[in-house]
Amino acid sequence: MVTMPKPLEFYGRRLGHDGRGLICAPLVGRSTRALLAELAAILPKAPDLVEWRVDFFDAIADQDQVLATAARLRALAGSVPIVFTRRAVHEGGEPIPIDEGAVVDLYAALCASGHVDFVDYELSQPEHHRRRVRAVSQAHGVALIVSHHDFSGTPRQADMLETLLRAEREHADVAKLAVMPRTPSDVLALLEATAQASAALRIPVVTMSMGSLGKLSRICGWQYGSSVTFGAGERVSAPGQMPIEALRGAMAALNGGA
Amino acid sequence: MVTMPKPLEFYGRRLGHDGRGLICAPLVGRSTRALLAELAAILPKAPDLVEWRVDFFDAIADQDQVLATAARLRALAGSVPIVFTRRAVHEGGEPIPIDEGAVVDLYAALCASGHVDFVDYELSQPEHHRRRVRAVSQAHGVALIVSHHDFSGTPRQADMLETLLRAEREHADVAKLAVMPRTPSDVLALLEATAQASAALRIPVVTMSMGSLGKLSRICGWQYGSSVTFGAGERVSAPGQMPIEALRGAMAALNGGA
Repeated sequence: MVTMPKPLEFYGRRLGHDGRGLICAPLVGRSTRALLAELAAILPKAPDLVEWRVDFFDAIADQDQVLATAARLRALAGSVPIVFTRRAVHEGGEPIPIDEGAVVDLYAALCASGHVDFVDYELSQPEHHRRRVRAVSQAHGVALIVSHHDFSGTPRQADMLETLLRAEREHADVAKLAVMPRTPSDVLALLEATAQASAALRIPVVTMSMGSLGKLSRICGWQYGSSVTFGAGERVSAPGQMPIEALRGAMAALNGGA
Repeated sequence: MVTMPKPLEFYGRRLGHDGRGLICAPLVGRSTRALLAELAAILPKAPDLVEWRVDFFDAIADQDQVLATAARLRALAGSVPIVFTRRAVHEGGEPIPIDEGAVVDLYAALCASGHVDFVDYELSQPEHHRRRVRAVSQAHGVALIVSHHDFSGTPRQADMLETLLRAEREHADVAKLAVMPRTPSDVLALLEATAQASAALRIPVVTMSMGSLGKLSRICGWQYGSSVTFGAGERVSAPGQMPIEALRGAMAALNGGA
């Protein structure tokens, strides 16, 4: 009777976790050295994926350095898939010194490099940029997460479902939605919308209710069909992320038994 | 913004837990010896309350033995409050060899004994029995939990709220509701009803969604206003109960942080 979250399928690989949610750990180092140290510290915690939040990277404007760093991360990560993400400021990311066109160039270079398995790009970006990211990721066999983040509150349930449906219509491989709860009931609304989206969409959905109140959704989202939850390896990349160990323990407490 | 669960007030004492839910461990031993061993094993786990499920007790028909056992449990439990509960078969309890009149006599004797702090009696029992349990508990300063258990499913949200309101109208000191989910959404409905009841009732509410799917509610119920969650010390008394350690760990994972 539990809603099974869909496995992540990405161009020849399939990442499932016995119906439980996968755990993705963010990498938020500002330098190549810091990122490699961060990844080395996280890998023993056995995340299912890692996400390089490149908006934290000081040298984001230097495409060669980004590519070289991606190569180093790829080599160190081994078979752990890497998600490459520039999170925009208006969706909770860090300020960066390059414009959106240069960001899309960077995505194109990363997709061509073979060093990353997923890219995450926002639904709120202009259509021509979104189309290009979709085209280059598809051309190079990189799976596309189309995401939306609302730090101001939790939209109505029907609107949350519609956002995830829209990501699918835009040819996403994975649809992601993160919202901020103002009340405990907002967390329940996100979970209910997730269950509906999981039934309505063909592609995997990834959702979370952020902040302290929303922690619940990071633990139990898989029961409502969310395929991935984010847990902090070394540092958090969004409010409400728990350390991987605590997250895994709480997920295990929900699992099994009568 | 978190709904604060109400503290349990019981005749001169006040049991709160910094806004987090209290943990109650069931005692299900069949003999005095087994119960004392069970309580001794549970106390180091620091439950906030213990509940003696007397329907498991082989000598339930022997009032003197029940009273003597209650005295022993009281002495061993120290300041940890004891809930005395005969759970009826139709609400998930064990078969017992005495009729409902004798059960109410037993409740009266236990209330008069001073060995227990709470009694739990079901809303589904005939009115004259409920009235007598209310009268004897009030006369002896024992707090009354009026409970309802639905093992067949999860009623509509409005009906769950009404059940808890009805317990308050029947002069309960605490209103308790346990329901069985059939879908993940049923768990969300119980939590939403709990938040509404917590706002609508003057008395503390205690709720849970049972079984594997409902485990979530045992971990996060306090965020929706449920004052007590049940965790297994030695053995479970209802489906979905987790060991106290796992329960406390998962509750802590939800607490604190950004």
